[in-house]
Amino acid sequence: MRTSLHQYLIDNREKNLEELLSWLKIPSISTLSEHRKDVKNAAEWAEKKLQEIGFPEVELIEGEGHPLVYAQWLTDNNQPTLLFYGHYDVQPADPLNEWHTPPFQPYIDKDNIYARGATDDKGQVMIVLAALEAWVKSEGKLPVNVKVLLEGEEEAGGASVEAFVREYGDRLTADAALICDTHMNSVDQPSLIIGLRGILYTEIIVKGAKRDLHSGSYGGVAPNPIHALCLLLSRLKGENGRIDIPGIYVSSVPVSDEEKDFWHRDAEALEKRLLKEMGVEQLVGEKHVSVHGRLGIRPTLEVHGIRGGFIGEGAKTVIPAEALAKVSLRLPAGSRPTEVFKQLEHAVQQKMPKGYTVVVRNLHSGDGVAVSPENRYINAAAEAIAEIYGVRPVFMREGGSIPITALFDSILHIPVVLMGFGLSDDGAHGPNEKFSLNQFYKGMDTVADFLGRLRN
Amino acid sequence: MRTSLHQYLIDNREKNLEELLSWLKIPSISTLSEHRKDVKNAAEWAEKKLQEIGFPEVELIEGEGHPLVYAQWLTDNNQPTLLFYGHYDVQPADPLNEWHTPPFQPYIDKDNIYARGATDDKGQVMIVLAALEAWVKSEGKLPVNVKVLLEGEEEAGGASVEAFVREYGDRLTADAALICDTHMNSVDQPSLIIGLRGILYTEIIVKGAKRDLHSGSYGGVAPNPIHALCLLLSRLKGENGRIDIPGIYVSSVPVSDEEKDFWHRDAEALEKRLLKEMGVEQLVGEKHVSVHGRLGIRPTLEVHGIRGGFIGEGAKTVIPAEALAKVSLRLPAGSRPTEVFKQLEHAVQQKMPKGYTVVVRNLHSGDGVAVSPENRYINAAAEAIAEIYGVRPVFMREGGSIPITALFDSILHIPVVLMGFGLSDDGAHGPNEKFSLNQFYKGMDTVADFLGRLRN
Repeated sequence: MRTSLHQYLIDNREKNLEELLSWLKIPSISTLSEHRKDVKNAAEWAEKKLQEIGFPEVELIEGEGHPLVYAQWLTDNNQPTLLFYGHYDVQPADPLNEWHTPPFQPYIDKDNIYARGATDDKGQVMIVLAALEAWVKSEGKLPVNVKVLLEGEEEAGGASVEAFVREYGDRLTADAALICDTHMNSVDQPSLIIGLRGILYTEIIVKGAKRDLHSGSYGGVAPNPIHALCLLLSRLKGENGRIDIPGIYVSSVPVSDEEKDFWHRDAEALEKRLLKEMGVEQLVGEKHVSVHGRLGIRPTLEVHGIRGGFIGEGAKTVIPAEALAKVSLRLPAGSRPTEVFKQLEHAVQQKMPKGYTVVVRNLHSGDGVAVSPENRYINAAAEAIAEIYGVRPVFMREGGSIPITALFDSILHIPVVLMGFGLSDDGAHGPNEKFSLNQFYKGMDTVADFLGRLRN
Repeated sequence: MRTSLHQYLIDNREKNLEELLSWLKIPSISTLSEHRKDVKNAAEWAEKKLQEIGFPEVELIEGEGHPLVYAQWLTDNNQPTLLFYGHYDVQPADPLNEWHTPPFQPYIDKDNIYARGATDDKGQVMIVLAALEAWVKSEGKLPVNVKVLLEGEEEAGGASVEAFVREYGDRLTADAALICDTHMNSVDQPSLIIGLRGILYTEIIVKGAKRDLHSGSYGGVAPNPIHALCLLLSRLKGENGRIDIPGIYVSSVPVSDEEKDFWHRDAEALEKRLLKEMGVEQLVGEKHVSVHGRLGIRPTLEVHGIRGGFIGEGAKTVIPAEALAKVSLRLPAGSRPTEVFKQLEHAVQQKMPKGYTVVVRNLHSGDGVAVSPENRYINAAAEAIAEIYGVRPVFMREGGSIPITALFDSILHIPVVLMGFGLSDDGAHGPNEKFSLNQFYKGMDTVADFLGRLRN
């Protein structure tokens, strides 16, 4: 990397950190309607920041959902165009009582920033914004043409950005896309992501009697929707981790020998790391599948929340009329969530105990994606990482889902570079989410270097 | 019944109703600590009422829990002594949004009073207080010696009253006890209760990882305590209603031929009524056991509440660190809850999926009871009911639990008359709890008549 760029980023570390903190203070929780104004404030923050960097065209696009922030700076017809995507919305912060410091009052210790959104995704978006600014301020201009698309609904289904990509795909014309919303294997072994699972997120609602009942008067003959929901969920997935939904294992993704080799080499270390991060003594799930496979390419079924009856202090002998669970499936690339939703609905109807009604609602879904590791943009990313980290990255899968990746792939037909700087213990979506300061600064260097390598 | 008594009760219907309404307005929810003051207010209400009736000795007994209200009026050494027990605390009112009118603003339509506590138990205690007052005001004195013991923790385990009965049993010396906290078969077929199930109320807490996890990063290998809890609960009781806890079916209670005959005659009507009250098309549970048996003497296992993970609006892809269920067992007389707790704990440890820790907490318990239908006090109750309702009552079991009954039986060694005036659709413990005005007034007549029949 050019010395001037590098020096600029070193000189401005404190400024960039301060700016990130001011963004993290805005509780832009997209799924909670009471935070609507905060989400907009976070969008306006990004709009202002892009203007400050010098983007000549910056737009806040408002529709039915949360706004999109779009910016472009087309500097040279002879250079390629990079589309950068990120999101400024965050997950809800509950359970609040498990945070050691308030989620929207960022706390910094010597190694990390603790705040909701620190790694997912404001911290990683800030890396790119800082790298863009460094080019402008130290070199006078961006090395390639850049389009920026930031959304505020990534954690809430992403309807607005999907509609925008489908309708205004031509505005987004680019040669490649960059997304920084994933994590690396480790600081010592950086990685690039070439596969993401898709997701189907549903609510299952079970109803029994028309009203809550007293267990003393009705226990023994009354439908109990909580118990029925437990029976259902235990039938959809067993203790062995196998999902019992016909059709669910039909799709699979090809894995290269190189990748399998890495899985094999890394298996013991990964298991050790996972056990430590989770604080448990054994992994659960499908014993016959490798740990990398279970995390990266196998379908999963997880219950994210369950609710029913009396959950306050003490005792109440009620048999509730209704119970609800939030259940998602992570799906390999090639598996279509809309198809899987039908398979799930059918399996639920089949497996539901008698005497209840059940409804399955599709809250949101996104296709999985597998990107080719063979193109100049991914090569540039790999070289930038090797330059800054001193180690060539391995190609990996990530179990999480970034639905926009599949859209870019299918609508814009451009290669997507998934270069993330999170670490596996960042705790995205959980309490005490953090982002490593070291990764924050190394990420800026890497992205700045990457941008330079894209020039013809 | 004496005309003067009857007339007094007719003349004072409005006054008695007004008094009940003022008591129902006090949200004396014993399980919620923020209602501690309200519970005390409800106790003071009862204290004042007993003084107004003319009881010469009235005492508010305060200890660690909610207060007891104790009163006695010993009028004649040659007459028997009746101990009346009731409770002034109520169940929590949630789910609040299912109430058609606010739970603590009593609402009266032409047939019913709607309020939390209307039938369980303030309305039924008021019946007895009104009958006692009628005797004093129209006849100049009570027909027999009366002791009154009201507690404020019936819905919360009843620790204070249990300690009091165990320690001061001699103050409670009596010839029989009266409890009005049950319901009748129907207005056309009144009933007296000769058996109550015991109860064991527990919390089961399952823990997985040390913190909440993101399903994208850990799904497939991470312990999911919600799913494990579902597996556990589905293993403790199957869809067929059978409880899989070794030892649980060892105790059983003898049922007389007369009772079995009634079960047989009443089976179809009961099933029809239950289906209508619950608004369902089929009963669940043990198909090979009669409906009366399932409701009255078989053990039950019910999940009253379940909580885990994200249950807010929208989607959050979290795998929570912990999940919790509130689970009770109703137990036949003869089955000891403390024994059953050990059996449950053992079964939970056996059935728990691997990779989790689980804790079972005993929140409260009470023995079941079977009372003999052959004594002059129950006979007097049966005659009073026959007099007022024009039909002789049948003897029945109630599935609910009134732990004090077992204490009176085992510590005081006195027969317990369980004469309740609730109806099966009153919805005790649920939203829109109600009490029939007709039963409220008929109940006063019946108790007043009953008191007269107790004299030597």
